[in-house]
Amino acid sequence: MGEQQDREWTGEAMTQLFHAKKGEVTAVMRRVAEREKISAELVRDEVALGRLVIPANINHKNLDPQGIGSAVTCKINTNIGGSAVRSGADEELKKLELCLNLGSDAVMDLTVGPHIAEIRQTLLDHCPAPLGTVPIYEAIERAGTCEALTADLLFTCIEEQARQGVDFMTVHAGLLREHIPMAKERLCGIVSRGGSLTATWMLHHQRQNPLFEEFDRLLDLCRQYDVTLSLGDGLRPGCLADASDASQFAELKTLGDLVRRCRAADVQVMVEGPGHVPFDQIEMNMKKEQEWCDEAPFYILGPVVTDIAPGYDHITSAIGATMGAFHGASMLCYVTPREHLGLPTQQDVRQGVIAYKIADHAADVAKHRPGARERDDALSKARANFDWDQVFELSLDPHRARMMHEESHVSKDDIKADYCSMCGPKYCAMKLSNAVKAAK
Amino acid sequence: MGEQQDREWTGEAMTQLFHAKKGEVTAVMRRVAEREKISAELVRDEVALGRLVIPANINHKNLDPQGIGSAVTCKINTNIGGSAVRSGADEELKKLELCLNLGSDAVMDLTVGPHIAEIRQTLLDHCPAPLGTVPIYEAIERAGTCEALTADLLFTCIEEQARQGVDFMTVHAGLLREHIPMAKERLCGIVSRGGSLTATWMLHHQRQNPLFEEFDRLLDLCRQYDVTLSLGDGLRPGCLADASDASQFAELKTLGDLVRRCRAADVQVMVEGPGHVPFDQIEMNMKKEQEWCDEAPFYILGPVVTDIAPGYDHITSAIGATMGAFHGASMLCYVTPREHLGLPTQQDVRQGVIAYKIADHAADVAKHRPGARERDDALSKARANFDWDQVFELSLDPHRARMMHEESHVSKDDIKADYCSMCGPKYCAMKLSNAVKAAK
Repeated sequence: MGEQQDREWTGEAMTQLFHAKKGEVTAVMRRVAEREKISAELVRDEVALGRLVIPANINHKNLDPQGIGSAVTCKINTNIGGSAVRSGADEELKKLELCLNLGSDAVMDLTVGPHIAEIRQTLLDHCPAPLGTVPIYEAIERAGTCEALTADLLFTCIEEQARQGVDFMTVHAGLLREHIPMAKERLCGIVSRGGSLTATWMLHHQRQNPLFEEFDRLLDLCRQYDVTLSLGDGLRPGCLADASDASQFAELKTLGDLVRRCRAADVQVMVEGPGHVPFDQIEMNMKKEQEWCDEAPFYILGPVVTDIAPGYDHITSAIGATMGAFHGASMLCYVTPREHLGLPTQQDVRQGVIAYKIADHAADVAKHRPGARERDDALSKARANFDWDQVFELSLDPHRARMMHEESHVSKDDIKADYCSMCGPKYCAMKLSNAVKAAK
Repeated sequence: MGEQQDREWTGEAMTQLFHAKKGEVTAVMRRVAEREKISAELVRDEVALGRLVIPANINHKNLDPQGIGSAVTCKINTNIGGSAVRSGADEELKKLELCLNLGSDAVMDLTVGPHIAEIRQTLLDHCPAPLGTVPIYEAIERAGTCEALTADLLFTCIEEQARQGVDFMTVHAGLLREHIPMAKERLCGIVSRGGSLTATWMLHHQRQNPLFEEFDRLLDLCRQYDVTLSLGDGLRPGCLADASDASQFAELKTLGDLVRRCRAADVQVMVEGPGHVPFDQIEMNMKKEQEWCDEAPFYILGPVVTDIAPGYDHITSAIGATMGAFHGASMLCYVTPREHLGLPTQQDVRQGVIAYKIADHAADVAKHRPGARERDDALSKARANFDWDQVFELSLDPHRARMMHEESHVSKDDIKADYCSMCGPKYCAMKLSNAVKAAK
């Protein structure tokens, strides 16, 4: 980023949305256009409509901006961060490097427990991708307990994180007091961490959600640093039985109202989505968000399409994520095999990121994004030519593909052969097919 | 199976289809009805229409029959079998036990190389699930080369396998000489093993496909032992670029004609499907098969929805398989992580079977199959109650779920705790949510 001048704070709204509405193309927009191979004017127009967001805090100096929205390729986000029980800055930094190397487009630091600010600073210093947080985690850590949290402390944390350079923040501003009784009917209740903390606070204080009550205060902070708001779905379903219920959709309605307030205030905004959703309800969920939230980019978590596969939720959720992206979701929050069971290890992060690279790419291909299928075709051509090195190089995980191929062979000579151990030399379809092609 | 009498050969057509057309309910149909919790009369009517098949060779004495079709739950098939390069009867028997334990509904023995008949006998002796084969593999093994194969030898192998008790056979009878020029245009050509062998044979001999030319001879054999024909898609696409092309659909049209001939001859029949298909073309592919093949059960391989993830094709294909099953496929042929790279190990078989149990279950839930969601709800309830043992027990892979949970904990006491290391005790959403539920 050579051109930072248009991201400096000058005392008034200087968000990408502000510029776009005025018809200006910023350096940030130009970079997104370059990455997406579309025109900068299209980027600007989409940002102006609010259908595209570019989380780019003016203080995140090493940022290489990413666009998130229906006009660009689907993105994936990797959640990292330690919990009170496990992990520290070093381990999280390794996860950061790993997920960026594997192609993650955005990263959220979900650290809870001590050392939150320190881990976040370390990650920001090393993260060219947009970095997101859930500020209520730090606020509660500093308050000591959920109940001791005050609105002022929460806003202090938000302001400090914004000044530090956080690009997007999940705020559960649409979870209202009046939604809680609906959620009590559920099989799994409130499974969003931020959502359950917010509900606990509201019940204890018998007060409305402070982020909702003082939403304009939040908007002022976001406008100052160009923090993109990610409106959290505190009432996202935590099991198939709770999907698409009254409480989920009551909150979504509120999120739609908040989207309109963000846009009026020149604050970039996206909306977060479920969760656990049966496969047949995914399209409907995507359409409802588009309708109720005026096409704000939808940032979905999975959804997992069955509850019965703990240990494999990167798969259950990649299925849902592909369907969601196909029907309009703009960013997919990855899920690892260890979801529901524990904090992911580096190996889990790898599995999760690859599963989501598959989901977002499959959706981009299915939506006929220009050039999306080029890599598939190149790899398939290499496959037909037995150019194994090229096959591995074009793979999402070259190391694993190469390893699996090598360990399946009985001799070193086999590795370069024009067949693999799956069929053996005599029954290799590709080999036979090449002969058929060559025949008259 | 206490009641075998209605499966004995008495010199005339005694297939399940024959009985169903006459309005008879057989012991086999009753068993399928019991497993599916539907009436035996419905099973009979669906079999009579050809929308449901029950592969049940009269000589597979230890068979516990399974129904495959749109009226019953979605099934998965596991391919096992050695290749010339690797594996023998012992290793394949271990894979058989593993895939049956994990819930595979059908098994195909795809052994090539020596010991085909011996491995098949071993598997049949230990397999209560319907067992399928691709007879051309044995025929070519016995002929020595593809070119030396004769029609008589192929039919001899089919007859011997039928007598041995094979329940369903993949025959590439719909791949015609005139289709080959179309397939030459493809990026990856003919990637079906049986398809490429058949094409090679036709080109060499300058003759039509003998299975097509002598299809009535094939029907006579199948009728005698109640072998269900699985009409192979020799021209299934092997990469996204080749999907839904002229050659694929030319063969599918022919398969539709063969379906009608099977039914007229009282032979049960299903149709095999792709392969590699972009996500947006899957629904169309399912609908076309239903239309052109008069709703014959569609048995699909994946499809994988991107070519760029070798090493993870159990995931790329589980995504496509879920979509396919949702839109009407009746059986899903599993794909392992080692697809395209080598012969699967036991660990690969495990990964593949679980991925497909996820896909078929997710589709059954999405199609609102009665009772399909019960296990999800039970597991989610256990999850909300921190009944970890119950969570593991209801999981598709209890061993892995338990292991991942245990290794994520710092102390033994933690394992039974009402939180997990993902959030730690203070931020556990489930725990907080339970308190919210309990509050007034």
